[in-house]
Amino acid sequence: MSETQNRQITLASRPVGEPKDENFRLVEGVLPQPSKDEVVLRTIYLSLDPYMRGRMSATKSYAEPVAIDGVMEGGTVSEVLQSQYSGLAKGDIVLGYTGWQAFAVAHGASLVKIEKKLAPISTALGVLGMPGMTAYTGLLNIGQPKEGETVVVAAASGAVGAIVGQIAKIKGCRVIGIAGGKRKCDYVVQELGFDDCLDHKDENLPALLAKACPKGIDIYFENVGGEIFEAVFPLLNPFARIPVCGLISAYNETTLASGAISVPILMRAILTKRLTFRGFIVSDFASQRQEFLQAVSSWIKEGKLKYLEDVVDGLENAPKAFQGLLKGENFGKLIVRVGEEQ
Amino acid sequence: MSETQNRQITLASRPVGEPKDENFRLVEGVLPQPSKDEVVLRTIYLSLDPYMRGRMSATKSYAEPVAIDGVMEGGTVSEVLQSQYSGLAKGDIVLGYTGWQAFAVAHGASLVKIEKKLAPISTALGVLGMPGMTAYTGLLNIGQPKEGETVVVAAASGAVGAIVGQIAKIKGCRVIGIAGGKRKCDYVVQELGFDDCLDHKDENLPALLAKACPKGIDIYFENVGGEIFEAVFPLLNPFARIPVCGLISAYNETTLASGAISVPILMRAILTKRLTFRGFIVSDFASQRQEFLQAVSSWIKEGKLKYLEDVVDGLENAPKAFQGLLKGENFGKLIVRVGEEQ
Repeated sequence: MSETQNRQITLASRPVGEPKDENFRLVEGVLPQPSKDEVVLRTIYLSLDPYMRGRMSATKSYAEPVAIDGVMEGGTVSEVLQSQYSGLAKGDIVLGYTGWQAFAVAHGASLVKIEKKLAPISTALGVLGMPGMTAYTGLLNIGQPKEGETVVVAAASGAVGAIVGQIAKIKGCRVIGIAGGKRKCDYVVQELGFDDCLDHKDENLPALLAKACPKGIDIYFENVGGEIFEAVFPLLNPFARIPVCGLISAYNETTLASGAISVPILMRAILTKRLTFRGFIVSDFASQRQEFLQAVSSWIKEGKLKYLEDVVDGLENAPKAFQGLLKGENFGKLIVRVGEEQ
Repeated sequence: MSETQNRQITLASRPVGEPKDENFRLVEGVLPQPSKDEVVLRTIYLSLDPYMRGRMSATKSYAEPVAIDGVMEGGTVSEVLQSQYSGLAKGDIVLGYTGWQAFAVAHGASLVKIEKKLAPISTALGVLGMPGMTAYTGLLNIGQPKEGETVVVAAASGAVGAIVGQIAKIKGCRVIGIAGGKRKCDYVVQELGFDDCLDHKDENLPALLAKACPKGIDIYFENVGGEIFEAVFPLLNPFARIPVCGLISAYNETTLASGAISVPILMRAILTKRLTFRGFIVSDFASQRQEFLQAVSSWIKEGKLKYLEDVVDGLENAPKAFQGLLKGENFGKLIVRVGEEQ
């Protein structure tokens, strides 16, 4: 195969606060030749997710940060152009973690082949991928929803929140979403079937939430933090469970304000109400992948679970789309179409 | 039976901050006659425990507060003087919740008969009672200790902490205690077999704790809060478990200072380290009572688990002893001998 011209988006500098255009750089180069057990990939879809903000900072989180001038990390759906790996052939569609680039060389063992017939291949980045599995495993393992309980989901129209709420409905819970703006709230109630959805921009959120949860809150799926957590906190019932999946409201903060709740107040509530707070990331439940795929794809087929994708065209538009994601500007799972599906 | 003169300690007024003598009142009166299914009890031992501070405040916690002029609540070991209840006879020794008084009339069904031959009857208030079961259920259900893990226990010489640490040792953990003063620390290491014990009065506690826990902390059994939690917090390992059993350092606080850690910092740690914080009280695990009694009494017989009681003589001395308990002045499980064992 002749030399392949690649395009990549690298981390030019570490953002302070909100990421800006200047923190990213579009670079061109030549793709290296694959070695034994490697494959050459053409990126079709790139997933954009809030956790990527953490990788842009130097602070170690559960994963190492992206290096300066390193390719931005991210999940991808790609076509195999050339394979030196026995398990994959030219034309296969694979899920990988090859980052923000048009082509990639990757080790065959790091890729998962996608069955094209099962569902649209983009769903491997969303409802049948990391966000869907995050929702499924966090809600069921930590939230442990029981029929009749009240579940509150922030970022309710987002890639994770939308799935959390729909699974909670399937489990017989009363589900209240919180989302940004009327359009998203209408979608969450009318399309996804949540019992109610509140606009987090409403100043009266604490009062509205109290009214929407007359029996208190049994599960709060935390992926936002900040003022939404403060509105949820006084409504938590004894034995409430709080899976902590993300804190998007804080990702761009340069200082972490203490907010309205202090640690002693939080600890006292944990004690007296016997609350459970537990942080997780999807890989903590890696062994549940098959169970998740089976359950969620069945629910989709039965029409019990819907998903929405927000597809942006062109790798060069990924930085802007990612900046919008952190501000809640996307509507549905945010995906960049880097190349055409054949 | 003739009239029985009773002595009771009632709640005269609600304390602001530390309880003082004036918040208690010793009153004398006549014991009512027992009705059907009731028994007349002579108190032998009264348990004094930190949770009682919560009952003195008007704020609702997991239980209702004691009313003004109500008898202070508490667990007791008593002798049955007279029984109208088919399940109990004169001379039986029972565990009850009859409070700070010399005699009581109680419903027979609210009492548990104690086997005198099994262990000293006072242990029903300590190692084989509520504090022991708190330690056992909280550590095993929430802490889930695994061989080789590091466990930190505050109030390590106290009624709960001493048992937590010894069970963690039985489970093969490295156990670091924190206690007030050299005498308690020596006891914890030399008698109870903890690997190390640090003095919480030492200004260098954070550095000493880091040194004592070179592999970080996998379980922190929280029953103190405040500065000890702040020293523990940065050392928590990924997937650490924090059973929240009590917060004695805050019980007398009139304002809850936010301290050195803010809620956003705490939530970020919960997320990135996938921590579990879970509050509990012993009754949440009531179904494990038989298992607990069997395990702990076996360990005592085998010499694997020791206990220490701090016995104060005379009901009239209960208020002072309780004030000392909240300052950590007791040494072992604090019990008031209200009447003689026969």
